[in-house]
Amino acid sequence: MVLFRRLLGDVLRSHRMRQGRTLRQLSGDARVSLGYMSEIERGQKEASSELLASICSALDVPLSEILSEVADAVALEEAAMAVRLETVELGSVPIATEDPRGDVVASAA
Amino acid sequence: MVLFRRLLGDVLRSHRMRQGRTLRQLSGDARVSLGYMSEIERGQKEASSELLASICSALDVPLSEILSEVADAVALEEAAMAVRLETVELGSVPIATEDPRGDVVASAA
Repeated sequence: MVLFRRLLGDVLRSHRMRQGRTLRQLSGDARVSLGYMSEIERGQKEASSELLASICSALDVPLSEILSEVADAVALEEAAMAVRLETVELGSVPIATEDPRGDVVASAA
Repeated sequence: MVLFRRLLGDVLRSHRMRQGRTLRQLSGDARVSLGYMSEIERGQKEASSELLASICSALDVPLSEILSEVADAVALEEAAMAVRLETVELGSVPIATEDPRGDVVASAA
């Protein structure tokens, strides 16, 4: 199952790191506790819509841009899941392979 | 402030209605209570990532497609907000106007 909060966390973290900001700086600007901000980035906690707006504002990135990037990341995972499902349905014995980015795209069950 | 859950609710409702399904049918398929499903569609409750995945599955629409549509809707609201802000900054007196869909796009304060 592709979880929104996990990919949202990845996208938020990548923006923060590209800006060279620490988790502490961002959590201060977004008025969220350091621990909570960290859990959101790791996809362990859901961010409320108000908090998400506040984090986007602190990052100075439009919410629409964040959501668009999350949608793209979700689409990639959905495609990877479809490939895995197809492999299982074909009854073949998949071998762990790596795509050019180094991600495992299919692995033996 | 543009709230994710409100536009998510709009997108989910539009898919359900296009499929000619009732709130009761969808809530049953997604295994969520009727009242909660209704609140999600009206943007009054946040859907957890697991519930969002379950609703997308019940609608048979990829999560990536839903998120992409929400991102587009958010972008439209952000643009409308920017226009309103600009109008206020210019000091003009905006007049309530309606766009072709009947939505008020700018109104006098």
